[in-house]
Amino acid sequence: MSKLTDLQARIEAVLAEHLSRPGIPDRLRAAMKYSTLSGGKRIRAILVYAAGTAASAKIERLDAVAAAIECVHAYSLIHDDLPAMDDDDLRRGQPTSHIQFDEATAILAGDALQTLAFEILAESELSDQQARQITLLLARSAGAAGMVGGQMIDILATEQELNQLELENMHRCKTGALINAAVIGGALCADSLDERVRTALEKYAANLGLAFQVIDDILDIESTTEQLGKPNGSDTAAGKVTFPQLLGLTESKQFAQKLYHDAMESLQLIGDNTESPIGVRLLSDIAERVVTRTH
Amino acid sequence: MSKLTDLQARIEAVLAEHLSRPGIPDRLRAAMKYSTLSGGKRIRAILVYAAGTAASAKIERLDAVAAAIECVHAYSLIHDDLPAMDDDDLRRGQPTSHIQFDEATAILAGDALQTLAFEILAESELSDQQARQITLLLARSAGAAGMVGGQMIDILATEQELNQLELENMHRCKTGALINAAVIGGALCADSLDERVRTALEKYAANLGLAFQVIDDILDIESTTEQLGKPNGSDTAAGKVTFPQLLGLTESKQFAQKLYHDAMESLQLIGDNTESPIGVRLLSDIAERVVTRTH
Repeated sequence: MSKLTDLQARIEAVLAEHLSRPGIPDRLRAAMKYSTLSGGKRIRAILVYAAGTAASAKIERLDAVAAAIECVHAYSLIHDDLPAMDDDDLRRGQPTSHIQFDEATAILAGDALQTLAFEILAESELSDQQARQITLLLARSAGAAGMVGGQMIDILATEQELNQLELENMHRCKTGALINAAVIGGALCADSLDERVRTALEKYAANLGLAFQVIDDILDIESTTEQLGKPNGSDTAAGKVTFPQLLGLTESKQFAQKLYHDAMESLQLIGDNTESPIGVRLLSDIAERVVTRTH
Repeated sequence: MSKLTDLQARIEAVLAEHLSRPGIPDRLRAAMKYSTLSGGKRIRAILVYAAGTAASAKIERLDAVAAAIECVHAYSLIHDDLPAMDDDDLRRGQPTSHIQFDEATAILAGDALQTLAFEILAESELSDQQARQITLLLARSAGAAGMVGGQMIDILATEQELNQLELENMHRCKTGALINAAVIGGALCADSLDERVRTALEKYAANLGLAFQVIDDILDIESTTEQLGKPNGSDTAAGKVTFPQLLGLTESKQFAQKLYHDAMESLQLIGDNTESPIGVRLLSDIAERVVTRTH
């Protein structure tokens, strides 16, 4: 198993291969590649590899799950950035898809990337049962009761007050569900998955996902536009409900630390039950990066 | 096996059940229901039931495939109607999703309906192998080299001339691929599928799909806005390339008749190899309806 940078290079190559399949109109392919191969931290893909390794899955099987999750993530960013949604012009310092191409192309590229995720799982080397389990997990995480539902709540929330529980629920749907799908999807690639390990991984994913979002809200206030690759303060400007706004900045940082601590605690049980300590170490590295990142 | 109207009622009930699952935000659920339970001819669902019956599949297994295909179809209509795409205000005589709700909700409802299609297949009573085969078929048909690719070509085509072959290829992607997925997806629900029957069904689907589109182009000219449930002449107004424009109106009608004839010819082989003549009769009824419809 490899270092984070090796895994970033690996998922980049896997995605490039999937996006080179024949029969895709040039402009659509260009837009799909633009948003999928543009780097990014690849946290979700790395979570697939790390959790899969911790559960003793072969890395070749993890490629498909990592690629599928990244396709869903890329599609969600394209659609979230659209003028009718968050109306963002910049993403990772680059023009968003509808600025670089046009709205119609951006909508279609997002649509096609979602489909591609399920195509990749169906044509993978996973067993029929694994492919089905992971397809179901991904669909439930990405769909109306998961990521898309979370985005709907987020849009409506700019018009109404949320309390902390409702804000956490929104993020659990909007970003937490896909992070959970990455962790559990990776682990399901193993020949078998111990129930206690699964439960511990789910706790890890839940705490990590929420920590990620709390830190995002903090960075939106504290980081510069250059560091973020998008305008700072854009959440507040868009009237979004954030953790600093609800809890205060200091309390939000403490909350993120608590979530990080809880995530690390879940890893202990996994560490005691794994034959691959390197997978657990990767999960630990990711959690640390999430809370110490500056963009 | 039942009549067309019984099957329309059946798929309506199956979809209503799927759309009642918990955890979906109210507004998102309302938009998903609005576009999925609004009637329509249900040709794709009925094709699943008809082809499945012709291949001796149990009807309970066909429900999931029919629902999945209708979800993909509904999602594609919502996104195609968006201002950045075809910018249509009316669909089946009703306001389109972004008019009835708003653009953001329409984008999310389409996104969630696509996800739901794959969720329905993964949680169905199909065997793991069947679920995987049909998931792959649906993903390839709906994705970048199928339906979404066809829509991309369609949008670009308003700015450039297409010849007849290119126009046929565009429609084969945009509508033909999903019609083929309905027919073959239904047949794959059988315990086994004879290769000759599969080939004949593919020919039937290809001819039916193209006939459907040629008739659509003719109706856009010959039918009234009331009959169509959307403004007549809208294709021409949008600068779209159509068969009447390429071939002339009379030749387009002859072409539709030839495609209908070829579709019916494929059914003969299936009729000779089926234990369920009622499935073949349904396929024949659908082909007749497609070429004789007035809206």
